[in-house]
Amino acid sequence: MLDQVHQIVIVGTGLEGASIGLGLKAGGFAGRIVGVGRRMQTVNRARELGCIDEATTDLSAVVGESQLVILAVPLGAFAAVFAQLADCVHDRLIITDVGSTKMKVCELAKQHLPDVRQFVGSHPMAGNEQRGPDAARADLFANKPCIITPEDNTDPKALGVVESLWEMLGMSLIRMSAQEHDRQAAIISHLPHVAAVLLVQVAAEQGGWELASTGFGDTTRLASSNPPMRADILVANRKPIIEALAALRDQLDHFHQLLGSADHDALLQVLTEAKKVREAWLDHQK
Amino acid sequence: MLDQVHQIVIVGTGLEGASIGLGLKAGGFAGRIVGVGRRMQTVNRARELGCIDEATTDLSAVVGESQLVILAVPLGAFAAVFAQLADCVHDRLIITDVGSTKMKVCELAKQHLPDVRQFVGSHPMAGNEQRGPDAARADLFANKPCIITPEDNTDPKALGVVESLWEMLGMSLIRMSAQEHDRQAAIISHLPHVAAVLLVQVAAEQGGWELASTGFGDTTRLASSNPPMRADILVANRKPIIEALAALRDQLDHFHQLLGSADHDALLQVLTEAKKVREAWLDHQK
Repeated sequence: MLDQVHQIVIVGTGLEGASIGLGLKAGGFAGRIVGVGRRMQTVNRARELGCIDEATTDLSAVVGESQLVILAVPLGAFAAVFAQLADCVHDRLIITDVGSTKMKVCELAKQHLPDVRQFVGSHPMAGNEQRGPDAARADLFANKPCIITPEDNTDPKALGVVESLWEMLGMSLIRMSAQEHDRQAAIISHLPHVAAVLLVQVAAEQGGWELASTGFGDTTRLASSNPPMRADILVANRKPIIEALAALRDQLDHFHQLLGSADHDALLQVLTEAKKVREAWLDHQK
Repeated sequence: MLDQVHQIVIVGTGLEGASIGLGLKAGGFAGRIVGVGRRMQTVNRARELGCIDEATTDLSAVVGESQLVILAVPLGAFAAVFAQLADCVHDRLIITDVGSTKMKVCELAKQHLPDVRQFVGSHPMAGNEQRGPDAARADLFANKPCIITPEDNTDPKALGVVESLWEMLGMSLIRMSAQEHDRQAAIISHLPHVAAVLLVQVAAEQGGWELASTGFGDTTRLASSNPPMRADILVANRKPIIEALAALRDQLDHFHQLLGSADHDALLQVLTEAKKVREAWLDHQK
């Protein structure tokens, strides 16, 4: 399907956007790749590195000749980019994104695009702690899962083009609703991040670090994630995260109660069950 | 100081006990090392592997000729071992342990020993997920911290012998009170374990694993720890852990509130501060 696309625009040429460009070239994409950035310096750097063919800060100037736009900007920038797109979008344009929450992005797409059937939400689950085009890698997305969130009225052709994009980068596709994506992300990704932050806060408040070792380090690793990016995610996905926090609090209260009554057998059962669940997940990963 | 010791008894020849034996031999300890176990098979295996010189299940038969006893049994077995020791302890015997909570162990020592000044609590902070004498390594404790919890009336000679024991294994010593040890352990070690278990419980209850990746894996790693050993620790140290859980709940409620009001700036401040604290800890580790 991607062979019908002659020009792709990647908005945002940081780690993810630049890696998409490199991956497309490595995967044999024959068309032209245009990078759009807010700062000419970053987008020029992505061109120098061979991630894109053309660098610009003017989205409207390059959309007309393009068939696919990939939004690879931080969540906080989506509203502004969709507003720009609204002014230059055309009938044959397919739009996707790499945002790590999907309800909010789909909502913005509905709000700004004249025809939301052209939009297909994606969440390629790759990335690392690095930033900027210099950290880009052609295989950043290879062998990783990509969640695709089509809606009932999504144009099948748009869906096909977007799925073939991620397949060219070596990703395995999982389709689910934007709502289900955000619910799962809240529990499996955003809640662990919040828990890591809370554990660091407790340790900072209560003092005493001599005993901190690898256990503390692993459990709190996510607290070292990029704060502005994470704050955007938390706010964008706050409803499912609030529900996940409530579930965590219920489990905490229950555990507190078992510990208060020194119920060794019940505690042992909880620990045994949790270990079993986690090992089953680990086995499934292999 | 350890050159005044001619025979050491290690009670419990699992990973830690057997590694102490190997480490002492590698460190040049010239005396005899006797291993005591509940099951002759395990303690014989430790002897075959060269971790100890003599294997027995009868503690009282070997204490008389020994100057140092190291209790390397799981926390749940301490009461029974102290009761056995009470029947055969003598004036020149120095006793230490490897228990990962210290108030409970010191309490048992006071309860069972005729002269508690002979006891010095230790928490060598080493170990891994493996178990049994076959996993033993002479360098298990090398370059790791060891917390020592002497009390005001601890015999200085006993303290000197116990500290030279851990120094021979390559550990760096940190002295603190048993109470401070347990308070820190609750915050830095036991609370992260409980949080990992709670996160797995929430995920198991709410379903949906497609999005789980390395972030989830790292944050919940401690939930794969040995359940019986962890249940013993939780019960033994339950008062400080209950306080730590209350502190975590306070932080959770505060975070919940910030998220509920979508207070982006306040959330960003919390995330930025947590990252700063964690990075400072990481830098200090280097």
